[in-house]
Amino acid sequence: MKSIVIHAAKDLRIEDRPVEEPGPGQVLLRLAAGGICGSDLHYYNHGGFGTVRLKEPMILGHEVSGVIERLGSGVSGLAVGQLVAVSPSRPCYSCRYCREGMHNQCLNMRFYGSAMPFPHIQGAFRERLVADASQCVPADGLSAGEAAMAEPLAVCLHATRRAGEMLGKRVLVTGCGPIGLLSILSARRAGAAEIVAVDLTDFTLSMALRAGADKAINARADPEGLAPYFADKGTFDILYECSGAAPALAQGIAALRPRGTIVQLGLGGEMTLPMAAITTKELSLNGSFRFHPEFAVGVELMRKGLIDVKPLITHTVACDDALSGFELANDRSRAMKVQIAFA
Amino acid sequence: MKSIVIHAAKDLRIEDRPVEEPGPGQVLLRLAAGGICGSDLHYYNHGGFGTVRLKEPMILGHEVSGVIERLGSGVSGLAVGQLVAVSPSRPCYSCRYCREGMHNQCLNMRFYGSAMPFPHIQGAFRERLVADASQCVPADGLSAGEAAMAEPLAVCLHATRRAGEMLGKRVLVTGCGPIGLLSILSARRAGAAEIVAVDLTDFTLSMALRAGADKAINARADPEGLAPYFADKGTFDILYECSGAAPALAQGIAALRPRGTIVQLGLGGEMTLPMAAITTKELSLNGSFRFHPEFAVGVELMRKGLIDVKPLITHTVACDDALSGFELANDRSRAMKVQIAFA
Amino acid sequence: MKSIVIHAAKDLRIEDRPVEEPGPGQVLLRLAAGGICGSDLHYYNHGGFGTVRLKEPMILGHEVSGVIERLGSGVSGLAVGQLVAVSPSRPCYSCRYCREGMHNQCLNMRFYGSAMPFPHIQGAFRERLVADASQCVPADGLSAGEAAMAEPLAVCLHATRRAGEMLGKRVLVTGCGPIGLLSILSARRAGAAEIVAVDLTDFTLSMALRAGADKAINARADPEGLAPYFADKGTFDILYECSGAAPALAQGIAALRPRGTIVQLGLGGEMTLPMAAITTKELSLNGSFRFHPEFAVGVELMRKGLIDVKPLITHTVACDDALSGFELANDRSRAMKVQIAFA
Amino acid sequence: MKSIVIHAAKDLRIEDRPVEEPGPGQVLLRLAAGGICGSDLHYYNHGGFGTVRLKEPMILGHEVSGVIERLGSGVSGLAVGQLVAVSPSRPCYSCRYCREGMHNQCLNMRFYGSAMPFPHIQGAFRERLVADASQCVPADGLSAGEAAMAEPLAVCLHATRRAGEMLGKRVLVTGCGPIGLLSILSARRAGAAEIVAVDLTDFTLSMALRAGADKAINARADPEGLAPYFADKGTFDILYECSGAAPALAQGIAALRPRGTIVQLGLGGEMTLPMAAITTKELSLNGSFRFHPEFAVGVELMRKGLIDVKPLITHTVACDDALSGFELANDRSRAMKVQIAFA
Repeated sequence: MKSIVIHAAKDLRIEDRPVEEPGPGQVLLRLAAGGICGSDLHYYNHGGFGTVRLKEPMILGHEVSGVIERLGSGVSGLAVGQLVAVSPSRPCYSCRYCREGMHNQCLNMRFYGSAMPFPHIQGAFRERLVADASQCVPADGLSAGEAAMAEPLAVCLHATRRAGEMLGKRVLVTGCGPIGLLSILSARRAGAAEIVAVDLTDFTLSMALRAGADKAINARADPEGLAPYFADKGTFDILYECSGAAPALAQGIAALRPRGTIVQLGLGGEMTLPMAAITTKELSLNGSFRFHPEFAVGVELMRKGLIDVKPLITHTVACDDALSGFELANDRSRAMKVQIAFA
Repeated sequence: MKSIVIHAAKDLRIEDRPVEEPGPGQVLLRLAAGGICGSDLHYYNHGGFGTVRLKEPMILGHEVSGVIERLGSGVSGLAVGQLVAVSPSRPCYSCRYCREGMHNQCLNMRFYGSAMPFPHIQGAFRERLVADASQCVPADGLSAGEAAMAEPLAVCLHATRRAGEMLGKRVLVTGCGPIGLLSILSARRAGAAEIVAVDLTDFTLSMALRAGADKAINARADPEGLAPYFADKGTFDILYECSGAAPALAQGIAALRPRGTIVQLGLGGEMTLPMAAITTKELSLNGSFRFHPEFAVGVELMRKGLIDVKPLITHTVACDDALSGFELANDRSRAMKVQIAFA
Repeated sequence: MKSIVIHAAKDLRIEDRPVEEPGPGQVLLRLAAGGICGSDLHYYNHGGFGTVRLKEPMILGHEVSGVIERLGSGVSGLAVGQLVAVSPSRPCYSCRYCREGMHNQCLNMRFYGSAMPFPHIQGAFRERLVADASQCVPADGLSAGEAAMAEPLAVCLHATRRAGEMLGKRVLVTGCGPIGLLSILSARRAGAAEIVAVDLTDFTLSMALRAGADKAINARADPEGLAPYFADKGTFDILYECSGAAPALAQGIAALRPRGTIVQLGLGGEMTLPMAAITTKELSLNGSFRFHPEFAVGVELMRKGLIDVKPLITHTVACDDALSGFELANDRSRAMKVQIAFA
Repeated sequence: MKSIVIHAAKDLRIEDRPVEEPGPGQVLLRLAAGGICGSDLHYYNHGGFGTVRLKEPMILGHEVSGVIERLGSGVSGLAVGQLVAVSPSRPCYSCRYCREGMHNQCLNMRFYGSAMPFPHIQGAFRERLVADASQCVPADGLSAGEAAMAEPLAVCLHATRRAGEMLGKRVLVTGCGPIGLLSILSARRAGAAEIVAVDLTDFTLSMALRAGADKAINARADPEGLAPYFADKGTFDILYECSGAAPALAQGIAALRPRGTIVQLGLGGEMTLPMAAITTKELSLNGSFRFHPEFAVGVELMRKGLIDVKPLITHTVACDDALSGFELANDRSRAMKVQIAFA
């Protein structure tokens, strides 16, 4: 079967790998769609991010859907031929954090396509995938592409829970890539009354408006665009920081009202913060990392039509064109989510 | 009456000022004790901190107790001759934040001895003080010095509320000046199971142990002292950051377990943070600023013997010796809280 | 001007009352629409509820919208001719609960059309109404009827906040009158993943489905309808109890999962509860009463098209037909919200 | 070995049972002390409570400490001869609630001495006990009796967490048996500023004052004792309801301030509640059931001298006198916690 393997920065190869057999409690999937994520791009562009570096070839990919081809023994609740969204989150369920219900903080997490431990955790961009039945959420009624959006959606649903009360709140989103847009959709779904989006390109901002933002500000063209929101110690209750850029965070902090909450989604390394403002306005800066139960929630919300991710999928390329897909995904002036069609 | 007035860095003068008259709902106080706070020291040492700078002479002081000398009209519940702790927090009770119950975020706050607005808000280091009756909390049974500790204690009680659930938690305190020590007392009072204190001097660490810390680490003498707490993603549930030093915060973050909480009390300006750790461990960094209802709470806890601040008051100087008191307060190798006895 | 005045059970009269003058900070409104609420019906049917009894004639009504006819001195941000939703919540802003931000618990609340204090607080079913500008929320783009729905919507938005985290949750609503339906809309707006509605009549249940419930159960026709949800200690995260009926609450409790939350909206007197289930499943039963900031939130959500209350308004009668409107509102087999058109 | 076995109401026998062998990960304990709990008394007095009834003979007891006599294979961190507190909470760690970290809600819980499932879960009142190492918490420095108090203390620490923020709060405790007294100790440890205790006998109230209550009210001798706390909608922030008596709950509700919290610890069946007060004052009634992580927390707090349970242990009887111990425990006019000394 074909697999999409990263060897080093800018060295992405389509390689043949053997198909695995599903064990008890597992299923064999024919991959349907795979979305290219920001971390995939980091491996492709830079060979890693922060202290996480490639040390051996690794199959990329963790935003995938597939069609069930074969059921291992003891699997119930799933059927051959069924489209499923596949969660890349595979905690051990027995470490101390798993026992406390914090599965995304598992000490032994095996998250698809992650170079953090060594040997690396191989990813899911391959024509056939063996997965635990518990990773598979039925996606009847969704397209393969929508089902593959369950993963980044889950990231943003988890972030929304980390943001606390959302109903009737004023929300600022800095950074309007796929995570920023899915944050807009999630915040709206959770009852945000007003959503303002900030980015540096008109394309992403037009997508933000389409996703439901009430207002879009191009911080490059209109550097004073947020200034009216600084009055009386600030306006917004919640900031989704999706850019990883210190200036965006600093501006967002100035626009937050006292006791406001920042959800930090962008994966920067070190950042310099206006700590005096955080202290005196008593802001809360909450990190948010991946997800676990929110994966199934996201599929359910999409299936019921309560969240519509389709407009975010701007491009779909064939498996053999994966390389051009990665280059496309690098171009924020015209591409939002780029997906690979495996079947 | 004598007043302690800061004119510029290192220019502290004892000046004569006229005694005011108490209006309706007010009382005239003979000042009893006044504690020298870190912000008083900043004005004295540097003429301000961050963007807050002295622009005119200002009476210092906001940690004070006094004896009621005269009652204005309409005052009930207080008696002449009674010792009271005097809250320096004077919100407007009508701005939007006051109406939401966030009085410490009042848009029109007149907090004693603060150079933030101009004209500055004059402080309380003066022999006679007119205060609103609502600022005065009866302190029967306390010494004048203890009553004057109500203010910094309230800061730490508020910070403890900002930290969230404390019962049975593991707590790290970085920075063991008066705020660090009062954080130890507050965390213990709120049910912390384990408290570890970190600082750079043996004197402050010995005081931390006396305040109830289970363990004290001198980060200068033993730079690896916190390392055992880094295992399995970290140990502590809560970090009181009272040093304002980026290295302390970075070490504390490494020692915090996933979903742990940092309460930021140190008033730094910009700080560089290990944001990747905050994101991936999903930490919460909560600013904490002053207090409001916690002032009366602190007095009550002291009066019932549930918090004992007496060991923290290491020096008391006469009003005429205020200058030497400020110099003493600068010396963390032997002084913790230095107070001025006004009567 | 005509006013709708209740004198005793079943003694509702349309009476002539003098028009008042708007003072400083007030506006004179020409009433547009007024919705008949459950408490209005209680006064009409029974002369009160629980210990709250009519002791003098009282103008009914607290769900109203109006068009501004005249501005008192010092009013800004409102314009003559503008449609506004009028909040009946008039707290004192100075009692201890107001100062804590709990305005709906004000010790001196003057809520329209309420017989709780004596003299009673006169209501808003009158052709002309003088209101504080702060009670008026611009409703541009809404119909008069929609604007008059802001009040019961606010009740349910407040209840939704009292319910805690809603995103992705499973919700049960018992009782599908207007409050039940607005709870469905609010829960959905706040991100509920699944909503099941229970009532005793097919009409209200069909309305519940139209409001977005995923499933409707007629507890009279299908008394075992909830039984599948009892498995494994229960299914639902949240119960909105809108019926005030003990059997509904008992069934709901059986269907709640451990640590689930009941929001109690129905205004019963004494009720007998299965306390052992509450204790062993560690449920939270949270009372919810009226609202305050949620009034403006509701208007904003309606104006942005994020909540659509129009289908709930099943009947509109003229002011002169108010009596028949009240009788209609009593008939849950065909009427949901009945409103009176004043202009 | 001797075991204390209940056959039916008032039919308690000391029987000989075979000693078990510790398997891998287990230890063999020589029992040290066992406290008689309210549920043990229910089995003894009535053969059960509510729908939980004895259907076969059952060894009683779940409040126990022991000395390690032998280690099964693979056990580390424990030593022969060591005193340990033994948690009776044995969740499956794999059901859905365990996976969410709610171990006390485990679907397959095997809690010592519980007649809820059939066959019953045998208890721990026996001279030798085989336990999982994970149930054993080292109790060095504590007496056997104190270590056996870890269980009821854990119940009250868990309840205190269910109560929410405690620092500086006003607390009412209704019912001053061992659970009421441990609630007082826990509330104080968590920072309660004022604690008022209510019961019907002078003996328990004198114990409440000794445990740290600020005031004790005998509701039989002084039925109006709580009335002053009803003013202005009520006074207390938190009510620990430990009596299971509807009148106590009703009085407590009247004395709670708006948005106050009731923690329901008493295990009644059905109870009639003043629901109108719960709704209009927006109280939260939170069930609390057993504990899980709080067991080790309680042992740690006792070992550090932060909670002192010794005064609560009023009587210790020999194993052969167990029957008289049960009769003594029934007498609230002179006995608080009665323990059985096994060795």
